[in-house]
Amino acid sequence: MGKNRLEAFSDGVIAIIITIMVLEMKVPHGDSLEALAPLLPVFLCYVLSFVYLGIYWSNHHHMLHACQKVTGSVLWANLHLLFWLSLVPFATGWMGENHFAAAPSAIYGVVLLMAAISYWILQQLIIASQGRDSLLKKAVRGDWKGKLSPVLYTIAIVLAFWSQWISIGLYVFVALIWLVPDRRIERVLLSENT
Amino acid sequence: MGKNRLEAFSDGVIAIIITIMVLEMKVPHGDSLEALAPLLPVFLCYVLSFVYLGIYWSNHHHMLHACQKVTGSVLWANLHLLFWLSLVPFATGWMGENHFAAAPSAIYGVVLLMAAISYWILQQLIIASQGRDSLLKKAVRGDWKGKLSPVLYTIAIVLAFWSQWISIGLYVFVALIWLVPDRRIERVLLSENT
Amino acid sequence: MGKNRLEAFSDGVIAIIITIMVLEMKVPHGDSLEALAPLLPVFLCYVLSFVYLGIYWSNHHHMLHACQKVTGSVLWANLHLLFWLSLVPFATGWMGENHFAAAPSAIYGVVLLMAAISYWILQQLIIASQGRDSLLKKAVRGDWKGKLSPVLYTIAIVLAFWSQWISIGLYVFVALIWLVPDRRIERVLLSENT
Amino acid sequence: MGKNRLEAFSDGVIAIIITIMVLEMKVPHGDSLEALAPLLPVFLCYVLSFVYLGIYWSNHHHMLHACQKVTGSVLWANLHLLFWLSLVPFATGWMGENHFAAAPSAIYGVVLLMAAISYWILQQLIIASQGRDSLLKKAVRGDWKGKLSPVLYTIAIVLAFWSQWISIGLYVFVALIWLVPDRRIERVLLSENT
Repeated sequence: MGKNRLEAFSDGVIAIIITIMVLEMKVPHGDSLEALAPLLPVFLCYVLSFVYLGIYWSNHHHMLHACQKVTGSVLWANLHLLFWLSLVPFATGWMGENHFAAAPSAIYGVVLLMAAISYWILQQLIIASQGRDSLLKKAVRGDWKGKLSPVLYTIAIVLAFWSQWISIGLYVFVALIWLVPDRRIERVLLSENT
Repeated sequence: MGKNRLEAFSDGVIAIIITIMVLEMKVPHGDSLEALAPLLPVFLCYVLSFVYLGIYWSNHHHMLHACQKVTGSVLWANLHLLFWLSLVPFATGWMGENHFAAAPSAIYGVVLLMAAISYWILQQLIIASQGRDSLLKKAVRGDWKGKLSPVLYTIAIVLAFWSQWISIGLYVFVALIWLVPDRRIERVLLSENT
Repeated sequence: MGKNRLEAFSDGVIAIIITIMVLEMKVPHGDSLEALAPLLPVFLCYVLSFVYLGIYWSNHHHMLHACQKVTGSVLWANLHLLFWLSLVPFATGWMGENHFAAAPSAIYGVVLLMAAISYWILQQLIIASQGRDSLLKKAVRGDWKGKLSPVLYTIAIVLAFWSQWISIGLYVFVALIWLVPDRRIERVLLSENT
Repeated sequence: MGKNRLEAFSDGVIAIIITIMVLEMKVPHGDSLEALAPLLPVFLCYVLSFVYLGIYWSNHHHMLHACQKVTGSVLWANLHLLFWLSLVPFATGWMGENHFAAAPSAIYGVVLLMAAISYWILQQLIIASQGRDSLLKKAVRGDWKGKLSPVLYTIAIVLAFWSQWISIGLYVFVALIWLVPDRRIERVLLSENT
């Protein structure tokens, strides 16, 4: 299985998810600026999810860069990741329409947590396929972001039923620590070549 | 006709089908966890169809890998396959919304059967285009999955009007036997190169 | 401007149009086989438009194969073609929902006619960009299909208000004469290389 | 990060935006030609936005052509641009449904202005990544279109509350001055190679 087609397919799926999510923001009734006001929480949810999907797309790209061959298990682990990412618009829409109510905010965290777990599974399978001198293994050594994120998602899910604003704050915080692009993989790849 | 553009187009269509199918899961009214309960059968249908589309994408990829040139008939057999795959979300939605009623469960099987037949036609046309020493012909020799699946779909369609749970069980069973990725084509290709 | 990106973009747009058109077939209310009956005209419309979009995708591919460089005017002529193709689902849905009424059947022909004209403009601009020894010019010499189709569309548009079944018959007839894939371009390209 | 995947992802997102925007034009109730009349303003809005997205796709392509490496900040500036472009269908739909009312016409301008600003940011970041001898910097020297457009958008936003027809006229005017394809980048690239 060529890596290129896996990348192209993943790009296609993420491009569709990220675009249609924003397209789903409904045109308001009424033609005044006030008609836009109720859309604000929905809009903010979309911005947050847009950033998350952008982070996944960017990190996915870097990870596949360090992957030479695509095995059957890597292929299915990738589809598994895409499945959870494709639920992001659902969770986003539910959270936005209910103005950050407790249950939708918790479910949003569950989807993020499952996406993080499926990303981790994909990473482990690529490392396993590379054998002892895995480039990716070196690259993700000391990957504190990848370890911290699922912990923070879990805390956010539990706390959502007590105060959803803490949950939202945690989701925003995790997005911010990831926005700094992951240059470790690039660095290891560069140092290998020299 | 270049194989690359056929692959890219097929990838695009399958990516759109698989993604939009999940996106069609409607956001529930109400903001409690209980509001999610009626979505469970719909969700399970989507998971099943997601797996089926993943199987088709993966097998399609392997088959085209063993195909050197794209003739007009291969192009149209491919579009024919994509047409039936594009009906999967329709059958999935109808089955999910009616909680696995008899007729929708049978129609779901009809769509799967037609997709399997159109896949088989595409395979035969690629083999025919390759002439006597067809790589693909060797690769699919002893393809018991490809022969068994349409038989099981047909049984499932008939039995749906008696007990749809047997049908659903058969659809899940066929998906499971395909989830083991098809390494035969890769093996024949490898042995050719050595 | 690289030809590859123009091809990839066109493929993406046509893949989205062809797929979403089929996805728009609404899941029927009711869980019996009879509930599918009213969908039959809609379904047949979709099959016809699916074939038309497949023909355009295939011919577009062959035409770009014979095109070396993409000028600004070729780029915009291509977008112009994509614009009319993107109206096919609209015309298809209107015709299907109104069971082949006169006005929708005529508008369907108008969209096909505009797509044919924009395809012709694109072809002329590619020929112009190739200069005197245009490969494409040789390839489309004696292109009776490309000349006959707009004439038949125009007849179908006018006759729709008298009997829409003649119009539908003409649309089906034109699709059938195109289904035979266009090998002229390939032939000229081959003879150039030898 | 490979430039190809950034291009492919951007192409995918823009292809989805441009196509789905047109697909969102709703099939009218009624089967007479008169039923199409109320769709005319909506249709004209779509044509305008289709042209704008075509301009962005074309210019984006030329700009990336002059870009050698993709840094993390370029990647996110590109996603930022795609985010604002993905709001174009929303603004188009709101403006079309309300027949060019004041507030929707102003918001349409805001989305165009934000897209123009995010395009400019992306351009500056690519120039910065190229260092002192930036090809792109030379190419956009004297870019009066890029400087004039945001000024005209701002005037259009303010004037929308006084007369929205002036705003619409300005949006059409800006689209027209961009329709002439931007050959400056190509020219600089060519002169570098000779």
